[in-house]
Amino acid sequence: MFEPSVYKARRAALIQKLAAMGIHDGVALFPGNRESPMNYADNTYRFRQDSSFLYYFGLAEPGMAAAIDLASEKSVLFADDISLDDMVWTGPKASVREQADSAGIDAAEPLSTLSGFCAAKRMLYLPPYRMDIQAQLAELTGVALGAVPGGASMELIRAVIAMREIKEDREIERIERAVDCSIDMHLAVITTAKPGMSEAQLMALAYREALTGGGMPSFPPIATTRGSVLHNHGYGNTLTDGGLFLLDAGAETDDGYSGDLTSTFPIGRRYNDRQRAVYQIVLDAGRAASQAIAPGVPYRQAHFAAARVIAQGLKGLGLMKGDMEAAVADGAHALFFPHGVGHQMGLDVHDLEALGEIHVGYPEGEHKSAQFGLKSLRMAKPVRAGMVLTVEPGIYFIEGLIDIWKREGKFTQYINYAELESWRALGGFRNEEDWLVSQSGARRLGKPFDKSIAAMEGYRGA
Amino acid sequence: MFEPSVYKARRAALIQKLAAMGIHDGVALFPGNRESPMNYADNTYRFRQDSSFLYYFGLAEPGMAAAIDLASEKSVLFADDISLDDMVWTGPKASVREQADSAGIDAAEPLSTLSGFCAAKRMLYLPPYRMDIQAQLAELTGVALGAVPGGASMELIRAVIAMREIKEDREIERIERAVDCSIDMHLAVITTAKPGMSEAQLMALAYREALTGGGMPSFPPIATTRGSVLHNHGYGNTLTDGGLFLLDAGAETDDGYSGDLTSTFPIGRRYNDRQRAVYQIVLDAGRAASQAIAPGVPYRQAHFAAARVIAQGLKGLGLMKGDMEAAVADGAHALFFPHGVGHQMGLDVHDLEALGEIHVGYPEGEHKSAQFGLKSLRMAKPVRAGMVLTVEPGIYFIEGLIDIWKREGKFTQYINYAELESWRALGGFRNEEDWLVSQSGARRLGKPFDKSIAAMEGYRGA
Repeated sequence: MFEPSVYKARRAALIQKLAAMGIHDGVALFPGNRESPMNYADNTYRFRQDSSFLYYFGLAEPGMAAAIDLASEKSVLFADDISLDDMVWTGPKASVREQADSAGIDAAEPLSTLSGFCAAKRMLYLPPYRMDIQAQLAELTGVALGAVPGGASMELIRAVIAMREIKEDREIERIERAVDCSIDMHLAVITTAKPGMSEAQLMALAYREALTGGGMPSFPPIATTRGSVLHNHGYGNTLTDGGLFLLDAGAETDDGYSGDLTSTFPIGRRYNDRQRAVYQIVLDAGRAASQAIAPGVPYRQAHFAAARVIAQGLKGLGLMKGDMEAAVADGAHALFFPHGVGHQMGLDVHDLEALGEIHVGYPEGEHKSAQFGLKSLRMAKPVRAGMVLTVEPGIYFIEGLIDIWKREGKFTQYINYAELESWRALGGFRNEEDWLVSQSGARRLGKPFDKSIAAMEGYRGA
Repeated sequence: MFEPSVYKARRAALIQKLAAMGIHDGVALFPGNRESPMNYADNTYRFRQDSSFLYYFGLAEPGMAAAIDLASEKSVLFADDISLDDMVWTGPKASVREQADSAGIDAAEPLSTLSGFCAAKRMLYLPPYRMDIQAQLAELTGVALGAVPGGASMELIRAVIAMREIKEDREIERIERAVDCSIDMHLAVITTAKPGMSEAQLMALAYREALTGGGMPSFPPIATTRGSVLHNHGYGNTLTDGGLFLLDAGAETDDGYSGDLTSTFPIGRRYNDRQRAVYQIVLDAGRAASQAIAPGVPYRQAHFAAARVIAQGLKGLGLMKGDMEAAVADGAHALFFPHGVGHQMGLDVHDLEALGEIHVGYPEGEHKSAQFGLKSLRMAKPVRAGMVLTVEPGIYFIEGLIDIWKREGKFTQYINYAELESWRALGGFRNEEDWLVSQSGARRLGKPFDKSIAAMEGYRGA
């Protein structure tokens, strides 16, 4: 948690932003997250506070709510002190008043007074992503349960995005700490993996590093011998020599800031020739994308920079053919690179996506492309200094997708399906880094972590 | 997952049990769990299927629902096949029809047909513990959101408890696997802990063992230098020589069966004299409790067997005084042992408590005691062969509680507050094992794990 003045300043800035949009009264309501039951009410997942609550109020106890009265500019924390009975089980705790002070919050009130406080006021809230919060908002606002998401305040959404997407120096320090811990997760796995081990063993090792850092993984790790399955959350396969291992995993600091990295390494000591060739293209695509980052430049350009390198590289391998500029414009490369080059990262690993991916990643009024591949680009808008972005190009041989495209005769002018046959079992490659947009370009976050072929084979003991 | 015939037989037995209670028609509805969002909709906790869904339908995919038509005795699985688009991201998956077959389910229907299926039928459901399921039940049954828990079927609750609480041999084999993995978690921590380490480091180590086993922890581990805080889920303290470490942690198999163990060991190589004396009492209390387990004997008796050993032992140390039978009857021992001796364990670590703790642990119509300590006894009713129970007595020096009782002059005839002063910082001790009720007594589950003082000091390298 930061100093109380940090949260006071953020709330003051939010009030100003809303005022600039013509909103001078009403209540900006921030329901904090509650415990999330696993298989019964008392057996809960590890608590994760809502990120906007963390940003404006700093506190990470379950079951709180907070509000900003926009007319009086006063903030109120709604929460209950623990009973003497509870104290036996939980140990002594800071009072709600003390907790409010630690975040510079003006008033502290019992949770039972929240509905009275909200009654007959204009309520501004962010879209809920948990049903218990949606039900709470329905009760507080009198809106029908199903209508709650639609009643979220677009002004509040835009104001919160505008603030949270530009990281303060103190936030960058925390993010860099998360990235360092994420690097530890990766190095532990890369230096330990051996043929015969299970994916679960290596996921467990990554998990251990994240928990040792004091936080937890920022998302469910992908730790797989089948990197061509993009969202592979099973851990049942065994590592075999000659194959590849893809780890997409990051840590979160104890106060909620994320890291997010991907590595692809050989399960033997060295990449074989084809793996080496494809991996190098992915590295080159990442370099091209990160070099395309500069204030004012749409992130879509970084995406296309990576896509062009990938297409050219695959043409060099005989897998694509023809005019690669046209191929990229038409989306043919998406057979191999079907996702976007990256996303914002901060208090959420896909930062701010709870507020609507389109609002976070696209200029107001602009729509996503419907083109396969491009429609998965989460971040397209011009970047600004202080933004944190992932750069994560990949090349995948997705057998099901190859079959469909081949059957449909799709992009036969660009794709050499005959040559592709002998490559289709090669798997999936991705390299992901976290970058900070500077005044002039971008800087990779975190301690040194060399992803070159020589370095990766070095970690593997070659 | 077991053979399809297992689930068919369980569903047939459930239909019979309901018929015996006079219920011959209507629909027993089992909503499966959905993904549980962490900080936005797409960033979810590791999926945990509902335990009763697992028991009757075996499938562990998010977002399914299943129903048994009680008149026709037919079962239906409601779920959607993945689209080609999704297949690119998730890889190929078994069809819903194939999944239904694997659990011997008669019919497979799209999820969209569920509400039509439920319309105008008498619906029996278990109490929901997640708000998204509560909202789903509200929609399907037409009951108001807040009235859904109260509308749960008491007959279905009783029938499911009666079945799930008696473990099949195949389930005992899985539980024993979970206990073995839980023992690995404990041994890893006990043999690794050193002064200067953080609680988080050791919790992470336990976590790693659970994940390596292919499942996950069955509950958030307690890994603490402050065992006297009973529900300590922080991991911020550093281990110091001379102190104690308490680990309460268990693993869950990949198909949902739990283990749950607690160990208390010295952070140095040996317990000091006072630690040794108190730890031995806890071991003795556990032995007394487990010896009190036999079919037909209320589990409350095992609780009191442990309480008596604890009271007598503390009297021997000069911390209690007077008539210990009377002290235990009056609840004076609860200053040191404020919780119950154990709970049922199975597909949930507190088995079946989603259905109501009182229904699981107490005979029909019987209420819980209001006495401090005894009111935390989760399981009091007569045990039966095939039940799995934890045995987990403890002794705690809870400074806040000692202060309150002393100030109130509570039980001065039994408690030697003057002597207690020099013991109050000793911390907390608990030993927990998992036991199966046999035809004549009980058997400890899991591989050998000696908790004697000599063995514990041996693990520590003394």
